[in-house]
Amino acid sequence: MTKETDIKITEVALRDGSHAISHQYTVEQVTAAAKALDDARVPYIEVAHGDGLGGSSLQYGFSKTDEFKLIEAAVSATDFSKIAVLLLPGIGTIEDLKEAAALGANMARVATHVTEADVSEQHLQTAKELGMETVGFLMMSHMVSAEKLVEQAKLMESYGADTVYVVDSAGAFLPHQVKERIKALREALSVNIGFHGHNNLSLAMGNTLAAIEEGATRIDGSIRCLGAGAGNTQTEVLIGVLDRMEIETGIDLYKIMDVAEDIIAPILQKPQEIDRDSLTLGYAGVYSSFLLHANRAAEKFSVESRDILIELGKREIIGGQEDMIIDVAAELAETNKTSV
Amino acid sequence: MTKETDIKITEVALRDGSHAISHQYTVEQVTAAAKALDDARVPYIEVAHGDGLGGSSLQYGFSKTDEFKLIEAAVSATDFSKIAVLLLPGIGTIEDLKEAAALGANMARVATHVTEADVSEQHLQTAKELGMETVGFLMMSHMVSAEKLVEQAKLMESYGADTVYVVDSAGAFLPHQVKERIKALREALSVNIGFHGHNNLSLAMGNTLAAIEEGATRIDGSIRCLGAGAGNTQTEVLIGVLDRMEIETGIDLYKIMDVAEDIIAPILQKPQEIDRDSLTLGYAGVYSSFLLHANRAAEKFSVESRDILIELGKREIIGGQEDMIIDVAAELAETNKTSV
Repeated sequence: MTKETDIKITEVALRDGSHAISHQYTVEQVTAAAKALDDARVPYIEVAHGDGLGGSSLQYGFSKTDEFKLIEAAVSATDFSKIAVLLLPGIGTIEDLKEAAALGANMARVATHVTEADVSEQHLQTAKELGMETVGFLMMSHMVSAEKLVEQAKLMESYGADTVYVVDSAGAFLPHQVKERIKALREALSVNIGFHGHNNLSLAMGNTLAAIEEGATRIDGSIRCLGAGAGNTQTEVLIGVLDRMEIETGIDLYKIMDVAEDIIAPILQKPQEIDRDSLTLGYAGVYSSFLLHANRAAEKFSVESRDILIELGKREIIGGQEDMIIDVAAELAETNKTSV
Repeated sequence: MTKETDIKITEVALRDGSHAISHQYTVEQVTAAAKALDDARVPYIEVAHGDGLGGSSLQYGFSKTDEFKLIEAAVSATDFSKIAVLLLPGIGTIEDLKEAAALGANMARVATHVTEADVSEQHLQTAKELGMETVGFLMMSHMVSAEKLVEQAKLMESYGADTVYVVDSAGAFLPHQVKERIKALREALSVNIGFHGHNNLSLAMGNTLAAIEEGATRIDGSIRCLGAGAGNTQTEVLIGVLDRMEIETGIDLYKIMDVAEDIIAPILQKPQEIDRDSLTLGYAGVYSSFLLHANRAAEKFSVESRDILIELGKREIIGGQEDMIIDVAAELAETNKTSV
């Protein structure tokens, strides 16, 4: 178990949480939240569209407010906390990164699919040149073995990532799987190891503790679980749990509880819970963005959306292969016809 | 890890969940839920007031429907599932137990504070004589050491309990603590070991997996987390997780997901989430029934309700000692005055 200090928390409600409120953050909300998080002494606050810089689009959903305005507001509202941005190469650009840095963001988290770390090289190097702290963010980490994960993480380390995150984008990991992966990374890397959990299987907290037990020291949380799918590891609860374990985060427990209750809860359109859809996504281990496509295909072919999603998980379909959803639905319809 | 079959689930939404809806279950709701749970092949369904047989009262909250009518309805609605009742000696009586058995309930769960197993003797023995399957239910198990827990569990075993449950009434356990306790019980007892979790620290699922890893084979869940505090281990999610781990429960995943979405979710007055109050209760490790008293005392003495609850946890105040709440509030007010 980690001693003394040194689990550093990144609060993602103002980025991942943007999914949960259809990217409708206002400058006023971000200012109020960032100020209160700063006062609670949260080390990093991530601010961006849910899909990272440049995410505001027809495909990913338009933001109500230009994300650079939100980043600027968060920078202005904070003294202690550092502002982080997420960037998915292909969605966000080097220019976006430079603009964020110019506004005062000082951590760049460069996210790729777990098998595509090589596309992060230029962005991580640029972030370094801009003087930013750098994070490599391996999304959908549950889709590969520990060995493959180590290989990809080492690429990010070689590009200059100060931290490499195991990202459970679909909320699909089980605690023993997290342990195995964090342990393997801890043995292979010199840089910090991070963990970003989702709660689709009600294991965000359990997995986070498993990660910490094996040596992860950078942890993502979202206040009131505000995030994609069933949301993330609930920050204020995590601070309470770590406090009970005498693991130091530097964050004030009462203040972070109050941010949750008084600032974030009122923003929520509906409380985060694990419903049939988010459970199915976690069980299948697929991106939450597949849900809408699967529901449409299910209706068209008169098959179960759940069957489609689970089959997509088995076939290891990833973002960008959404056209496979129709194929799978058609095949399931054909199988159902044959078996009647 | 447990092989093949043999995690037997008890669904508690129609008992512990009664807390979450102010004991307002109707015969129609219980009939619909029990029928659907039976169809999903849930082995045990617990039906009673949230505080067990006889709980309907000014002190614990009046039930909308006489609980024996609900038990009768559940028995009528089920073929496969067995109906369980909870009984806290001192609240429910031997006569209540006999009436439940006469109506067809065939599992008696006799619950005591973790240090008071001796009061369960007569009730467990009567349940046995009535031909019921018997469970000893050690509430607030987090308040004692593994050694003390073993001592109390052995008492219940000696009274004829077929299963002894570790009950995390306050949602205060951490996974390593659960492991230690289940392991100690597994080594000391011959009967089944059960685990009943609450989600106040977002660890109901993580703790449940920890318990299973150490040999617990009887697990409580509540559909859609419907239970006291932040609710329980979410049954339909647990079935998905265990299925992913190839641990057999005999429960149909799709059907249990559908019970959650189509029958239980519409009954909920508001979704279960971990708010400031439930987090405080789990962090402090005190009964959820203390909350209202603490809030009142906080207002009267102009102190923080959280400070009161945390102090009550430190002093290991238990149900029946509610008069201590005022004392603690007064002391905190005095301390605040002195320190100003």
